[in-house]
This record gives sequence, structure tokens and C-alpha cells, in this order.
Amino acid sequence: MQTSNKFSLAEAITLLTRTPATLNALLRGLPDIWTHSNEGEDTWSAFDIVGHLNVAERTDWMPRVRTILENGEARPFDPFDRFAQVRESEGKSLEQLLDDFGRLRSESLAALEALNLQSADLARRGTHPALGPVTLSELLATWAVHDLTHLHQLSRVMAHQYHAAVGPWSAFLGVLKCAGHSAP
Amino acid sequence: MQTSNKFSLAEAITLLTRTPATLNALLRGLPDIWTHSNEGEDTWSAFDIVGHLNVAERTDWMPRVRTILENGEARPFDPFDRFAQVRESEGKSLEQLLDDFGRLRSESLAALEALNLQSADLARRGTHPALGPVTLSELLATWAVHDLTHLHQLSRVMAHQYHAAVGPWSAFLGVLKCAGHSAP
Repeated sequence: MQTSNKFSLAEAITLLTRTPATLNALLRGLPDIWTHSNEGEDTWSAFDIVGHLNVAERTDWMPRVRTILENGEARPFDPFDRFAQVRESEGKSLEQLLDDFGRLRSESLAALEALNLQSADLARRGTHPALGPVTLSELLATWAVHDLTHLHQLSRVMAHQYHAAVGPWSAFLGVLKCAGHSAP
Repeated sequence: MQTSNKFSLAEAITLLTRTPATLNALLRGLPDIWTHSNEGEDTWSAFDIVGHLNVAERTDWMPRVRTILENGEARPFDPFDRFAQVRESEGKSLEQLLDDFGRLRSESLAALEALNLQSADLARRGTHPALGPVTLSELLATWAVHDLTHLHQLSRVMAHQYHAAVGPWSAFLGVLKCAGHSAP
């Protein structure tokens, strides 16, 4: 399971660019069983996950890029509020959240490209409030993998709704055995 | 983690209909690091996964639906060849495989809708070569969850390529802790 730790800004951007269209294709217009059901108390539905991505887009990724470029290690990032999507999403439809995500992601990527980051910039360091020293390239790689971790979660939450309906096939469907791997 | 075992053909079809567009949005035109890298020896890349979905579409889902309707429990399903995608994909580009998948899925769903299945049909039974008795509704639910299990796998395989690049953030990214849960 070894990988290189080679990070390419261009490669990360190709992935980040596609996520809004991926979520649109997967979720827009689906019946509520797929979009508003979760995995039990204190777990997230597809709707909650898209709300979380919007909060991260507003408060996390580009603000942290700017903190590194402007303050280096001197100023830790603001902690991320993993429950802010309740307020972010209140009164909105999933379709509105998807529209918001498409717009916010486009704005983030336009701002990122405008920085015209060079190789030397990618090694610049910041301070994560819990993890300590991190680099700009680690932050940008995390942004891309954060999209993927929520796609992973989305597929699991949706599959969970048919856990009983698949009958004995549950033995062969890995996604139904996934417990999430993660903190709340 | 309780769910109802209520299966709705219409709900399953809404999901099955979206998978080709989801995979197109996620994968088409991405650099090879995201589409042709795997998780190590004897594991699958995104390219392999799309090839596998094409094989399943040709040989598994609608053929098994027909076996149930025509032969009931008397004739077990043909076993599924999980390695046939090597032959299926040989000499093709990912873009060709995605085109194939879109066409095959449309054909499958047109054939499914033409059957005009009624509630009573969904309870009809067939014989899985390893799992024993199964119902038509379990087969159709499995078809939908099979799409999701491979979306879950895809997000994991892609995230794996940045396992080292995210640095200390790997502690917070559940997808990087997923070992796959499944048989080969």
C-alpha cells in the first residue's frame, strides 16, 4: 500500500473541479430515501454531507491557504466546526445546497489559481490547531482527499438504506460492511 | 443501524439511471494517477472498476432477472467472473469503457422497464450458486448497491494515491483507513 508523496497542484485541481458535477449527477432529483436518510442517530444523510462540504468550502480550504501564505506557522488555523452544516443548510433544499456548492467551489478554485502558486510555495508551512506543523501541499492534497472521503461516506450512507433489501447478498457487498473508520 | 427492507423498483431505478453520469463526471479526462493507479498488487484501478461494471452489466444483472422469470429456482445463476474485466477492457481507453457503460446501462434499464414488473413478480425466487434462494427484489436491490460499493471502492482507490501527500491529515480522513471490507 505504498504511494509516493508526490503532490501535483494541477492533478489535485482536476479532481477538485469535478466534485460538484459528480454530486449533481449522483444526487440531484433523487427521492428522499437516498438523500435524507442517514445511518442512525447522530449520523449524516447525503443532505448533511453536502451542507458540510459547503461549510468547508466557505470556512476551511481557501481561508487556510491564505493563513499559511500570510501568517506562516505563527497563526494556527481556525478550528473547523464539523456541525456548522446544520445552520448552513437550514431551510434549504438539497438542490439549493448543490447549487451553492458548485458556486463556492468555482470561486475557491478561481482564487486558488489567481495565487499562481510555485513549487517553493507548496513547501510553506502553517500550524494546524491539533496536528501541528503542516505544509501548503499537504493542505491542498487534503482538500482533494476530503472530497473523496465524503464520496466514500455518501456511497455508504446510501447503500445502508438497502442493507436489508439485498438479503443474503450483503455478504458480498463491501460497502455494507464499512463502519466509517472515522471520528464523528 | 436498522433499516426497513422495503424495496421500491422506482427508487432503485432512479439510482441505477444516474451511475453512468456520476462516473463520467468523476472520471472522464482525469490524469492517469487518478484512473490507472491501484492500491497495490492484485488490486483494481478506476479503469479496472469501470471494466468490471461493464462485465456485470453484460453478464449479470438482466441475465439473472431473466433466469428468475424464466426458470425460477430450478436453474442456478451462472457464476459471476470477477476477473473478466481484464479481457473486457483490453485495448480500450477509460473513455471508451465509460461510453460502453452508459450504453449498456441504458439498454439494461430499457429491458427492465419493458418487463413491466408487478409487486408479485418482485417476490419471485431464483437460486444463487453460492447464496442459495434469493428473490427478484433482492437481486434488483443488489444491482443498485453494487453500483454504490464500487463508488465506495473508487473513492478509496483514488484517495490512496494521496495517502502520503496529505501528511498528518491522514488521521482525520476516514477513506484512508478503509481496507475494503470485501473478498477479492
